[in-house]
Formats: sequence, C-alpha cells, structure tokens
Amino acid sequence: MCIFAEMLPTMNKVTEFNEYRSKMNEKILASDEKILKRIFNLDTNAFMAGNLNVETKELIGLTCSLVLRCDDCVKYHLEKCMLAGLNTKQINEAMSIATLIGGTIVIPHLRRAFEYWEELESSGK
Amino acid sequence: MCIFAEMLPTMNKVTEFNEYRSKMNEKILASDEKILKRIFNLDTNAFMAGNLNVETKELIGLTCSLVLRCDDCVKYHLEKCMLAGLNTKQINEAMSIATLIGGTIVIPHLRRAFEYWEELESSGK
Amino acid sequence: MCIFAEMLPTMNKVTEFNEYRSKMNEKILASDEKILKRIFNLDTNAFMAGNLNVETKELIGLTCSLVLRCDDCVKYHLEKCMLAGLNTKQINEAMSIATLIGGTIVIPHLRRAFEYWEELESSGK
Amino acid sequence: MCIFAEMLPTMNKVTEFNEYRSKMNEKILASDEKILKRIFNLDTNAFMAGNLNVETKELIGLTCSLVLRCDDCVKYHLEKCMLAGLNTKQINEAMSIATLIGGTIVIPHLRRAFEYWEELESSGK
Amino acid sequence: MCIFAEMLPTMNKVTEFNEYRSKMNEKILASDEKILKRIFNLDTNAFMAGNLNVETKELIGLTCSLVLRCDDCVKYHLEKCMLAGLNTKQINEAMSIATLIGGTIVIPHLRRAFEYWEELESSGK
Amino acid sequence: MCIFAEMLPTMNKVTEFNEYRSKMNEKILASDEKILKRIFNLDTNAFMAGNLNVETKELIGLTCSLVLRCDDCVKYHLEKCMLAGLNTKQINEAMSIATLIGGTIVIPHLRRAFEYWEELESSGK
Repeated sequence: MCIFAEMLPTMNKVTEFNEYRSKMNEKILASDEKILKRIFNLDTNAFMAGNLNVETKELIGLTCSLVLRCDDCVKYHLEKCMLAGLNTKQINEAMSIATLIGGTIVIPHLRRAFEYWEELESSGK
Repeated sequence: MCIFAEMLPTMNKVTEFNEYRSKMNEKILASDEKILKRIFNLDTNAFMAGNLNVETKELIGLTCSLVLRCDDCVKYHLEKCMLAGLNTKQINEAMSIATLIGGTIVIPHLRRAFEYWEELESSGK
Repeated sequence: MCIFAEMLPTMNKVTEFNEYRSKMNEKILASDEKILKRIFNLDTNAFMAGNLNVETKELIGLTCSLVLRCDDCVKYHLEKCMLAGLNTKQINEAMSIATLIGGTIVIPHLRRAFEYWEELESSGK
Repeated sequence: MCIFAEMLPTMNKVTEFNEYRSKMNEKILASDEKILKRIFNLDTNAFMAGNLNVETKELIGLTCSLVLRCDDCVKYHLEKCMLAGLNTKQINEAMSIATLIGGTIVIPHLRRAFEYWEELESSGK
Repeated sequence: MCIFAEMLPTMNKVTEFNEYRSKMNEKILASDEKILKRIFNLDTNAFMAGNLNVETKELIGLTCSLVLRCDDCVKYHLEKCMLAGLNTKQINEAMSIATLIGGTIVIPHLRRAFEYWEELESSGK
Repeated sequence: MCIFAEMLPTMNKVTEFNEYRSKMNEKILASDEKILKRIFNLDTNAFMAGNLNVETKELIGLTCSLVLRCDDCVKYHLEKCMLAGLNTKQINEAMSIATLIGGTIVIPHLRRAFEYWEELESSGK
C-alpha cells in the first residue's frame, strides 16, 4: 500500500474498481469470443425484474458472491444493491446469512465488503 | 439403485431425507460439543424474519447452497421455500441465477433440485 | 447398495446415468426459464470444434470437472472424450495433471472416473 | 436404498468403503501413470510421524477433508484417527472447528461423519 | 506496488494486517448484526484449549485456511501458531500436508505464507 | 495502487510476478520439507510432453487454474501457453470454456487474465 494513495479521496476505490472493470470488460467483448459475449449478455438479463424483483435478485447475487469468496463480485453487487434501494440493515442481515453458510473463511471478505459499503455510502453523498 | 426401492411411493425421498437428517442432527446435538450446538442454534435464528422476510432469506439459502453444490442443503431449503409459499417460477428463476453465477458445474445439482421440487410438490398434495 | 442391482449388466451404469441426465434435462428445458435454456445452448456450442479441436476441448471439460470434483460432469466428459477418439493413456495423463493441480482431495473422484471409463470401454464393445 | 441391503450387518459400510477404495486404488496404480503413482506415494509418506505426530497429522487430514467437503476423504481419515487412538471427544472437537471454518454447508458431511464414526466404533468391537 | 512502501520496515506487513483486521472487526461488531457477533464469539471460543490443545487447534486452523486458500486466514493462524510456540519445522510440515491435500493450486498461498512467517519471525525479535 | 508505480513500464507486472515467484519458490525449496520438494518436482514433470503434447497440457493447466480462480496460477500458465506457441484466439476460446464451466464468478479472474496476456504480448516484443 502506498502512503500517497491513502491521501486520495475515499471515493476513488469505487471509481477505481468501476473503471478497471469497464476497461477490461470492453477488451473482453472486443475479442471475437462469442461464448464470452453471450455469458456477459446473460449476466445483464438474469438480474432484471422478472418473477423475482431486482432487490431479491441482487441479494442473491451478493450472497452467492460472498460464499464463493469473490471480492470483485461482492463489490459489484453491493453497488447494485445500493442502487436498488436496499439499506444497510438489509445488506448486513443478508451477509450474516452468507457468513453462517460459508463459515468463518468468509470473514476476510466480509471485512472488505463492510469497507466497500462505507465507501459507496460516502461516494453517494 | 435397487429395483425394489423404485416401487416405493415417490414421497419417500422427501421423508427419507428428513428422517435421516433428524436422526443424525439429534446425535450431533446429543454429543457434548458446545460449538456445534451453537452453530445449529444460529442456523435456526438466521432464517427467521428480520430486516429481510423469510421468502428472501430462503431464496438466499437455496441459491448459496446451489452455487456451493451441496445437494442436501438444496433439498432442505427447497422444502423451506415451499413452506414459505414461493412458487415454481420464482424457484426456477432463483436457481437460474445461481447456475449462471456458479457455472455449468452446477447443472447436475440443478437436475436433482428439479427432481426434489417435483417430489415436494407431489408429496404436498 | 442393493445386491440385486449388482447382478444387472455393467453397461447399466452408463445407460442409467445418460437416461437420468436426459430425463431431467428435458424437464429443465420444459420449464420456461430462458436463462437456463441459453446456458444449456451455450454448453453445446462451446465444445464444438473452433480454434481448438474437439479432443482438446473435451480434455479441458474433463479436467476442469475433475478439479471442481463434479462426478456427473466427469462422467459426461469421459464419454465425450471416448467419442472424440481419445485413448486410455491420454485420459489418464490428463487426469493425473488434474489430480496434481486439485490435490489428493480429487482421488475419490479419480477412482469413480477410472471405474466409469472401464464401463464405457466394456459398454462400447 | 435397498431394503435388503439394510438387513446386512452395519460393519459392511466400513468394509464396503475400504474394499472399493482398495480395488480402485489398485487399478489406478496398475495404469502406467507415473504422476499418479508418485502422488499416492507422497500421500502415504506425508502422514507418517515427523516433526508432528500421527494424531496431529490425522486431525489435519480429517478437518481439511471436512472443510473441502469430501465424504470419502473424511471416512478414510476417521478410520486412521481411530487407529491413532484419538477418542470421540477429540474427533468431535476437531470437527466442530472445521464446521465453524467451513460453515453450515459442512453440516451434511458432518452427519455422515458422525454416522461413519459410529460404524467404525461398532465394527471395532 | 509502491516503491515508497518498500522502504518502510518489514514489520509493517504484520502490523498493517492486524490493524486493518482490528479496525474492520470493530465496525462489523458495531453493526447490530447478532448472527455476526455470535459467529465472532464462537470463533474465539473454538480455538481455546479443550479436548485438544491450542497447538493442535491452531494447526487445524492453519491447514484448513490453506486448503481453502484464504490468505488472510492463513496469516491470522500463522501468528497464533507462533504465539502457541510452534516452530518453523512443524509449521512447514503441516503446510506440506495441506499442499498435498489441496493440490498445486495451494502453492501461491504457500509462497505468501512462507513470506509472512518470515515477517512474523523478524518482527518478533 | 500507487501513482508512482503506474509510471513504471508495463513489462514490470510480468517481471514482478516472476521474480516474486522465483524468490519464494527458492525459499520453499531451501526448507527441508521433502513433501513440498517432491510436489514441486512433480509439477515440472507433469507438464512435459508425453501422451499429450505441451500445448494441450498448458491449456489444461490454464483452464483448471481459471475455474479454481487462482490468479497466480493463471498468470504462470498464460506465460507457458505463450512459450508453447498458443495464439490469442486459442487462449480466449479455452478461457471461454472455463468461464462457462466455472460461471460468472470466474469473470474478475478473466479480466486479470486478459490484462496479463496483453502484458505478456507487449513484453515479448
């Protein structure tokens, strides 16, 4: 960790994550890989409102990402949970179920999830 | 698989699963292992209505079980989803998100989940 | 295990697996779940000859299934490896790499893979 | 499950597991796969007394198998734990740590571990 | 990696890890999530001396963390192993079993574990 | 991330990874852990040409690393794939199969794999 980086505004972690994500997703889609394009497309469709509403789907996305211990997936779904209007108590309750199911091995990812949620909250102001 | 077993009524798979589960849970709780007792206790509390309702929590339980590829956990949450009043379309939509997140490696578990849901439906009549 | 079942011809394990797989896949596709249909469709397309040939793709499917410890996926790809013309020595070498990567935790799945390969060989005669 | 099989003595689950394991291990070793042979050889050496004693090593083998949710590996190490002289309270305490680390997703495997330990105890009489 | 950060004393990696861990654990506990509080509480209790001694429990914690490939969990248990008086040979032997069980996929985590153990040793002087 | 680090030439990510990897591998081998030495030795042997050629083996190594979501393992095998003469289209097709098998949870690792492949390409010029 760089001491200079820590002087930059907090919002950067959210921006940094989203910018890297967008940049690399574009490169992946720019390749001629049809299977990858379709998986990305499915990913967009799967989380749209259907028989389940967006809030429920995003909580599923968040908790599955947490038990599978994928920090980037957790970050992505935390932001989408916030956009869907879910509040801190609901997020924490969902993440507590995921931690129980996935075990204490999930805790390091929970720490980073709490940190990122705070950053989303402060960047949203 | 035994050809005689196949002549028994379908409801047995649900009953058989629940009986084995209850019998072994009792043995686990009968041991003097305090940590295990508390984990079992937490498991009961975590899925009660709170900031999230029971339906949402059971869908989280179901999908996390599916991406972690635990057939017994899937069966358990499928029954609790049915008791919570979730319908087939909602279950299938949740499971389709889990399959997308967890990949085609989830499909064998999805097959058994579809089969067990059918058995729950026919045993519920 | 049923002593009567053991008197049935060996070929049944291959047939039994394929019949259950087909029956449940049909039920999954008969549901109106668009995401699941598309994942199944992608699965078919991904393993067709492209920049890599079918043999290589099936070896990838087999070894990824083995490190992820999915018995049903291993069975499915073992049969497709055989149809692609891969021989026992090639299969075993691929599986030895998967066992090294995935660790001794893979060995119980390796045992079942060896058994199923034998059954595929004897059912193919 | 076959109703006839259930009439056979309980000891059979231990014998059945060990016989299948031995039979398939022999077939794996009979193949000319040098990498697999060496992995099997390492597996034997790694659990011999060294800087850590056999009891500690077997508890490591048991708990790692449990968090990785490998029933066959759990069975194998339960028998070796018994042979190493570990008692039920020690086994249960080790398994409670593994369940905490691995989460409630471990519980179905814990049930089968408790069942197998009972069978080892009764077969040892 | 920042070239300035590399000029800071080595001990910082241990301190940095522990400070972040403490800071975020406090935030998690400051939330009103009862399930999370209880899991954290269980985690403390589970590793206290009981039917198994602290050394054995910490080796279980270390190896389970390694096969589950959780760097932060490995770091945490390495420090607790050191505090419990385990020496380098014992740690390495335990980690070699974990690498065999979990496969070569564990090796990148093993590298970081060796590095962190060195840092613990030098920070302890 | 440090703003100064970003001014260093891109090739550094490849060099940095390889240097850290070599340095720590040497330390691991310098310990007297026979099991670890043998696993490292097996790892070298397993990827040599045999019944399968080096290209196929490296694609197996790459895809197994990707579904197991091990960034460092992916980097290592991407470089070996390049040395084996595999081209971008072949790599992408192999990785698309891995993403389908392992699910969208693989995507963050796919982003880093695309980035590293680019760096390998530019460092190779």
